[in-house]
Amino acid sequence: MAHTRLHPPHPFLLDPIVSRALEEDLGRAGDVTSALVVPSDVRAKAFVVARKPGTICGLTAVEAAFRLIDPKLYLHVSVHDGDNVGPNTRLAMVEGPARAILSAERVGLNFLGHLSGIATATHALVAQTEGTKARIVDTRKTTPGLRVLEKYAVRCGGGVNHRFGLDDAMLIKDNHLSAAGGIRQAVERARMSIGHMIKVEVEVDTLEQLNEALEIGVRTIMLDNFSIADLKRAVATVNGRALLEASGNITVDTVRAVAETGVDFISSGAITHSATCMDVGLDFATE
Amino acid sequence: MAHTRLHPPHPFLLDPIVSRALEEDLGRAGDVTSALVVPSDVRAKAFVVARKPGTICGLTAVEAAFRLIDPKLYLHVSVHDGDNVGPNTRLAMVEGPARAILSAERVGLNFLGHLSGIATATHALVAQTEGTKARIVDTRKTTPGLRVLEKYAVRCGGGVNHRFGLDDAMLIKDNHLSAAGGIRQAVERARMSIGHMIKVEVEVDTLEQLNEALEIGVRTIMLDNFSIADLKRAVATVNGRALLEASGNITVDTVRAVAETGVDFISSGAITHSATCMDVGLDFATE
Amino acid sequence: MAHTRLHPPHPFLLDPIVSRALEEDLGRAGDVTSALVVPSDVRAKAFVVARKPGTICGLTAVEAAFRLIDPKLYLHVSVHDGDNVGPNTRLAMVEGPARAILSAERVGLNFLGHLSGIATATHALVAQTEGTKARIVDTRKTTPGLRVLEKYAVRCGGGVNHRFGLDDAMLIKDNHLSAAGGIRQAVERARMSIGHMIKVEVEVDTLEQLNEALEIGVRTIMLDNFSIADLKRAVATVNGRALLEASGNITVDTVRAVAETGVDFISSGAITHSATCMDVGLDFATE
Amino acid sequence: MAHTRLHPPHPFLLDPIVSRALEEDLGRAGDVTSALVVPSDVRAKAFVVARKPGTICGLTAVEAAFRLIDPKLYLHVSVHDGDNVGPNTRLAMVEGPARAILSAERVGLNFLGHLSGIATATHALVAQTEGTKARIVDTRKTTPGLRVLEKYAVRCGGGVNHRFGLDDAMLIKDNHLSAAGGIRQAVERARMSIGHMIKVEVEVDTLEQLNEALEIGVRTIMLDNFSIADLKRAVATVNGRALLEASGNITVDTVRAVAETGVDFISSGAITHSATCMDVGLDFATE
Amino acid sequence: MAHTRLHPPHPFLLDPIVSRALEEDLGRAGDVTSALVVPSDVRAKAFVVARKPGTICGLTAVEAAFRLIDPKLYLHVSVHDGDNVGPNTRLAMVEGPARAILSAERVGLNFLGHLSGIATATHALVAQTEGTKARIVDTRKTTPGLRVLEKYAVRCGGGVNHRFGLDDAMLIKDNHLSAAGGIRQAVERARMSIGHMIKVEVEVDTLEQLNEALEIGVRTIMLDNFSIADLKRAVATVNGRALLEASGNITVDTVRAVAETGVDFISSGAITHSATCMDVGLDFATE
Amino acid sequence: MAHTRLHPPHPFLLDPIVSRALEEDLGRAGDVTSALVVPSDVRAKAFVVARKPGTICGLTAVEAAFRLIDPKLYLHVSVHDGDNVGPNTRLAMVEGPARAILSAERVGLNFLGHLSGIATATHALVAQTEGTKARIVDTRKTTPGLRVLEKYAVRCGGGVNHRFGLDDAMLIKDNHLSAAGGIRQAVERARMSIGHMIKVEVEVDTLEQLNEALEIGVRTIMLDNFSIADLKRAVATVNGRALLEASGNITVDTVRAVAETGVDFISSGAITHSATCMDVGLDFATE
Repeated sequence: MAHTRLHPPHPFLLDPIVSRALEEDLGRAGDVTSALVVPSDVRAKAFVVARKPGTICGLTAVEAAFRLIDPKLYLHVSVHDGDNVGPNTRLAMVEGPARAILSAERVGLNFLGHLSGIATATHALVAQTEGTKARIVDTRKTTPGLRVLEKYAVRCGGGVNHRFGLDDAMLIKDNHLSAAGGIRQAVERARMSIGHMIKVEVEVDTLEQLNEALEIGVRTIMLDNFSIADLKRAVATVNGRALLEASGNITVDTVRAVAETGVDFISSGAITHSATCMDVGLDFATE
Repeated sequence: MAHTRLHPPHPFLLDPIVSRALEEDLGRAGDVTSALVVPSDVRAKAFVVARKPGTICGLTAVEAAFRLIDPKLYLHVSVHDGDNVGPNTRLAMVEGPARAILSAERVGLNFLGHLSGIATATHALVAQTEGTKARIVDTRKTTPGLRVLEKYAVRCGGGVNHRFGLDDAMLIKDNHLSAAGGIRQAVERARMSIGHMIKVEVEVDTLEQLNEALEIGVRTIMLDNFSIADLKRAVATVNGRALLEASGNITVDTVRAVAETGVDFISSGAITHSATCMDVGLDFATE
Repeated sequence: MAHTRLHPPHPFLLDPIVSRALEEDLGRAGDVTSALVVPSDVRAKAFVVARKPGTICGLTAVEAAFRLIDPKLYLHVSVHDGDNVGPNTRLAMVEGPARAILSAERVGLNFLGHLSGIATATHALVAQTEGTKARIVDTRKTTPGLRVLEKYAVRCGGGVNHRFGLDDAMLIKDNHLSAAGGIRQAVERARMSIGHMIKVEVEVDTLEQLNEALEIGVRTIMLDNFSIADLKRAVATVNGRALLEASGNITVDTVRAVAETGVDFISSGAITHSATCMDVGLDFATE
Repeated sequence: MAHTRLHPPHPFLLDPIVSRALEEDLGRAGDVTSALVVPSDVRAKAFVVARKPGTICGLTAVEAAFRLIDPKLYLHVSVHDGDNVGPNTRLAMVEGPARAILSAERVGLNFLGHLSGIATATHALVAQTEGTKARIVDTRKTTPGLRVLEKYAVRCGGGVNHRFGLDDAMLIKDNHLSAAGGIRQAVERARMSIGHMIKVEVEVDTLEQLNEALEIGVRTIMLDNFSIADLKRAVATVNGRALLEASGNITVDTVRAVAETGVDFISSGAITHSATCMDVGLDFATE
Repeated sequence: MAHTRLHPPHPFLLDPIVSRALEEDLGRAGDVTSALVVPSDVRAKAFVVARKPGTICGLTAVEAAFRLIDPKLYLHVSVHDGDNVGPNTRLAMVEGPARAILSAERVGLNFLGHLSGIATATHALVAQTEGTKARIVDTRKTTPGLRVLEKYAVRCGGGVNHRFGLDDAMLIKDNHLSAAGGIRQAVERARMSIGHMIKVEVEVDTLEQLNEALEIGVRTIMLDNFSIADLKRAVATVNGRALLEASGNITVDTVRAVAETGVDFISSGAITHSATCMDVGLDFATE
Repeated sequence: MAHTRLHPPHPFLLDPIVSRALEEDLGRAGDVTSALVVPSDVRAKAFVVARKPGTICGLTAVEAAFRLIDPKLYLHVSVHDGDNVGPNTRLAMVEGPARAILSAERVGLNFLGHLSGIATATHALVAQTEGTKARIVDTRKTTPGLRVLEKYAVRCGGGVNHRFGLDDAMLIKDNHLSAAGGIRQAVERARMSIGHMIKVEVEVDTLEQLNEALEIGVRTIMLDNFSIADLKRAVATVNGRALLEASGNITVDTVRAVAETGVDFISSGAITHSATCMDVGLDFATE
């Protein structure tokens, strides 16, 4: 049932992204090295390997890369997106024409390393918050063009997703507030027009703003760059009347203290924009 | 003349990438928060700011994001891609309808932070190699869909580019060699067919392979995961007969020693796949 | 400020839709009639006219059609999207090369007539519910490829938007419930994984189901095909604990009675899928 | 052989339109409700049903929607595009993973309801003209982006197609005539340049114009907004020398009288731009 | 008024084709030679020159190439598409940043040389038929992706266009006839379903087939590979009852004799698929 | 192993080009002639035939055209790209629904005739240079949109490819030199920035320039429009220190003399921009 929870991007949405990456790598003339150096009838078997431990994400993209380059390649996956693995773990085995494997290798690994890096970074925060009610959430600070995949990687790491874009939820931030003339004006204007299926969150910078938001009935509030002490005060003040999201400079070292304040969500941009790529590779079998 | 050396991606190539990122963020309904909360006649002025020191790259993408959202936005850039800046430096000023600024903000900053992170990581390696002849080069380990921009970021950081894809140069790696039956067979097969405008590089894992490559006249050789001692031996052996590229696990701590062996190029995947995002933001002017 | 409330689709999102319609009409050879029959130097002035009364939507698309065919065409708009007009009202004036006007005319009018038809149908329902708290909402029963524009037309007619697609909100319908094994199982499974910025609505067919949904704390409930009597019972039962949306066979004749039951929302598929096109035309000025 | 007469759009042309509709509905995150609520191993069987009587069109689009979402879905069609059915008729049966059926359902039904509505509206006019030689033809007043499919729906309803765009036939209308300086000038200019495979039709508003068109040998003439009396006079005057198309405000109530005047074609914009959607649904089988 | 007759492809249709050609040439990294070798502030002036005599076509594409690479380039055109020029004629002058001129040069010239070659080849046939009523027409034997432009080049050379594709006119060829069971069956089947705005032409291989086609009232007939003697017999037999198109192995040497038989049209595939590129170049001004 | 040498474009790169050509031919309504005239159950068998002798290229595109129109068509290829064939040679056999064969026929043949024409023209030059070391190379003077395929056709004809675009190699031409202020300045500026995987070629017009290029160590030099005598002098001067490419007005009649001067490469634009289409056809089998 794990798969249900993660819901990987539909091939309908994934394939165009992988295709674009393959086009980017194949250029106009294609893989000239493999075409000119490797005889067309050489077959090979190779293992997709995680050289370091971490949380896996991107095997669906690896599968797409191999399939799009050559539908005759056979891929056997032995680990699933979302699994935590130890160092030097074989994740999958691919078998077929050597040229095709070589042509798709780099693109497949680029996705796998990038997304597993994000999943691993997310999982590191999630692990720190165990036993608290705080959930780790992502932001819109994602790599251009890869948001759908990166948000999936966050789910693989045990996080939950914040909004996917500017259109599927409202987040009224400080600059909106000042342009609107205050929290009350902003929220009232939003409520006048927004549909009932759109959630509204308001970002506050101070406890005063928090009180103002609560007064007018805001139910989801982002506490931006609050100190631990202020976070505790905020949780006490709110007392269950709203969901609270702590935001700002969250690291593996600081996240536990934030979680223990009692906030509901902790958002991190770094898990998507600054995760270290997982070290993954393709090892050809030799007999 | 700095600009000449860097040659930023032509708008013709850049704009589609920025457009796709904007589409990804605007979704179907567009920026509902700004549209519903910010009155249409509110104008604003804001500064693009680097909060931490580093090497800047991506102001051209920021410019594109603002222009594509609203051609009436006025952007004044005070720093150029490739410049090194200190903390809290104003990079650019944007002025115009507040809604448009808010709608383009995140996409512009995502590009700027991501690419400046790569430029900064590259520059860190370049700085370590000062005084040696070694140049820092990138790899094909780039984020899917952003290779052109990331290679530009490497140039901004003072590095030079390796090939852009599978088609514009040959790189005969270990798996090609084993599929072809050895270095001699692989190189001869390549020479038989490849055009005279395509460079050929061969990857070797041992000094024996290096000698074999030299014997058959290979002029560009990648030394994969050689120890410092072996790199020195390789440089001595080659004695100017070929360009040498050192590859494998290069870090800021190890790069100087590698450079001092006398190799011509040092390639790093980490500068593109694992750079930390630069902390950049948009500060609205208040009067 | 009306414009704020309506927030028309950004040109960034609108232009590709209008471009596709122009390509569909121009085909390979373009407008051969105008090219071969109308001398290239003939200029014209024409009025976009609503021949019947109704609520206008689509002038932004008309503007795009003229601009994309020829940026030199001058368009002066005298009415705005969302305005109610009487019969034979001049909505806009266009002036410039006669050929360009003739080439863009049909596409512009097709958008205007289609969207104004939807806005008018929506407004007819909205007018019937005046004085009640019920808001008219749309559905996903939209014309393929035009959802963004049709949802805008609903806003122009005074309605509010339901979700834009399968991804921006959850609507758990009867078939989901039966596949999941009941309301409780479905909702619990959803809550386990869904992000905090996604709203969840549950569709119920009976008062029993309504009670079950309330018990587990569902806050937005669709009452599907309830009789007026049952709607009243539902409103009484809920007593403010959840938002209620009435759905199923809503017409201008029945909507008032539904609204008077006290539900919060009334959804209609017919306003988007079966609206009659508004009769609009282009009258060339003669002097 | 019925299929020959109708020639449905080639999958090569249909699939991109259905894909775009699916992308529009799936958005970035895909069908979150089905993914999170319905277990991945639940299979289902469902029937595509017409709840009201009418002429069917769009089963090819339904097939494409299910196939594009999941090639493993099995669809058995029991009725064909162009067939007339009674109320509550099962049109097709689909079987496979419940999630996939739920994800494709709305898009498939949106096409089917929209196109069957057009086929039914066309058939209503065709039925009224039985026994006369008049054929019902469509116009360019189609929904943007769907012209190819809507023209196919008109064929399914028993109508024939007018031109598909501005490029595949000439239709010289009133505004062209005035810009050109009269019928003779316009037609002569057209003949000078147009290829021999392009048909030319001229729109006339009066019997005088009709005579002028006949004199210069025009063979296809549109009679725009003629009274029944004038249509009869026109038919008598022409006496077989040209094909005549009656145009303007055709309804089910007026079409018979128009057909009986002896015109060859009767064109209607309403069959494409104002048809009521057919009420279709998907009923899940229960055992 | 010449321009009216030729009606060049609308920028809306032309620009995507030129863009694709520029993308093909710029690849991923753009014009590295100009970027690295030519200082960014060097301006230049250059002349587009026809080195050999011929009929010009493609200046609109040249204009698009320069404009798309850099809107600041200034282009002054001194000759028009469709003009016949002598050797070493300056066709246009371009002025602006040297880099931009160099980057767009090859793509612009590729279009100009290719299309002027077609216009020149067409004009050569047209010149041979002067004084006869025969018009030169093209075929669907065009270069993939360039049909719209090549048909425009045929018009520039004085020819007229046959159908643009499989959809805008019917051409019943020998293989259709044999599949249908004969001319009568084929034509009757076509008439049963085809709209009144679609022309129908039948290809015949013998005088017997010609008679059969005439009997059933076919009005446009292609005489495929008829001898001169048979063409004359065909013209005499038809005696104005149908338009006749001679087809098959038309060359500059044979076309006059074919034209003098009295046929209405002579079609040539060679003018589009085998025309010699016109020798055009870009001469930089030196001062 | 021949196939290895030729490396046809990957389907991933070829299919979009063939798709675009099919879309261009099918237009909006598809192949109306086949749909309306040929019964849907008629099957056919046909042979792809070369009517004239030559070198074949494009069977992969023919295969793609048939497959994309109908995956059920069966194609048996009896000749391979790169083979030389005599007149009236059957190249392939296709079998399946007659309509599908007829719909794909023209597009498939257009590719085959065009590319085989280029392969044949290339082979004619290659044959003339037999016994010399000179290799025939292509240029960027290719048909817009078809460069990848035309470069493949050159390989099929026995030639080798020059660079694929402006980005994958540097070619410093006369206008770059004058903008840069001379060969030395240009080359030094290039070397300062260009990556080690990019080849640099310099075009020279005189023996003086050749000497200057040699002095600064240029290793690939294009001799533009040199006389035979000057080519010989150039070869003698260079004496193996650089690769030499002769360029300018190469024909079948002049190429041998050029090759015998001892140059390494001879480039020709005519083989791609002015090749005569090979006469190919589709013969339906009759039983």
